[in-house]
Amino acid sequence: MFILYFLIFFSACVAAGATGGMFPPGQWYRDLRKPSWTPPNWLFPVAWTTLYVCMSWAGARAAVAGDASLALALWGLQIAINTLWTPVFFGLRRLRAGMVVLSALWVAVAATMLALWYVDTWAGVLFVPYLVWVSVAAALNWSVLQLNPETANNPPPIEI
Amino acid sequence: MFILYFLIFFSACVAAGATGGMFPPGQWYRDLRKPSWTPPNWLFPVAWTTLYVCMSWAGARAAVAGDASLALALWGLQIAINTLWTPVFFGLRRLRAGMVVLSALWVAVAATMLALWYVDTWAGVLFVPYLVWVSVAAALNWSVLQLNPETANNPPPIEI
Repeated sequence: MFILYFLIFFSACVAAGATGGMFPPGQWYRDLRKPSWTPPNWLFPVAWTTLYVCMSWAGARAAVAGDASLALALWGLQIAINTLWTPVFFGLRRLRAGMVVLSALWVAVAATMLALWYVDTWAGVLFVPYLVWVSVAAALNWSVLQLNPETANNPPPIEI
Repeated sequence: MFILYFLIFFSACVAAGATGGMFPPGQWYRDLRKPSWTPPNWLFPVAWTTLYVCMSWAGARAAVAGDASLALALWGLQIAINTLWTPVFFGLRRLRAGMVVLSALWVAVAATMLALWYVDTWAGVLFVPYLVWVSVAAALNWSVLQLNPETANNPPPIEI
């Protein structure tokens, strides 16, 4: 059952991760002013692939441990918000809306980590790198928002 | 606890549903050739709001019933794929990729419905309208793909 759960959670991560390939950073992102500590581009797919394995592993550990309803419900919440961020930031190029989504994601990931920890210590530990990375991403989004006020205040129109 | 679970699942649905407001159909969708049985535009938000309530209710029923790990893991999978579809179809305007995502969504929703049913009959029943609507959406996506071969074969480029 562990491997089945792992595959289910990993499939959800693949759905979330597919946004990275379909809404690539592109020239728009390269042209944004970014803080000096911005991670290099190659690190993002490496980090996310590692995180997806940790997240799926955490979910599967909790699922087989039993009595993990809260942790699994929160796992579902965080992956939906995770899937939303890339299309908002790189698709719509909305720096402020991206910040709102990332803030919600941070809360959801922190809550999932705590709920996982309650079920299984290692499941909780496996979510720590994810929370760290989302914190970095939130700091980066915030910094880009501050450094590019003209882009933040004049987002491209949404075609209706 | 039921209401907490309901709110967690509903929040995930809000993340998925936010894509509808951020990637609206627009002129591009209006100009596509569509089958005669295409539902009117006003029905989509009404249907989805109803479905989100049913889906959250189903998840919460299963979560409080206990021993629902498989159903809840699958619930997380389907909401991530659900969140992905709108940005792919209305954001990237990729009819074929949209069909791939919808096919994956149909399988995930059907599997979630069966797993929910196993835990709690009403939880399973509450997912039936969702499966019906995703079937209609898949038929519509397929029909639009067939009726607009020039759009399907010449998707807009992804800016790298």
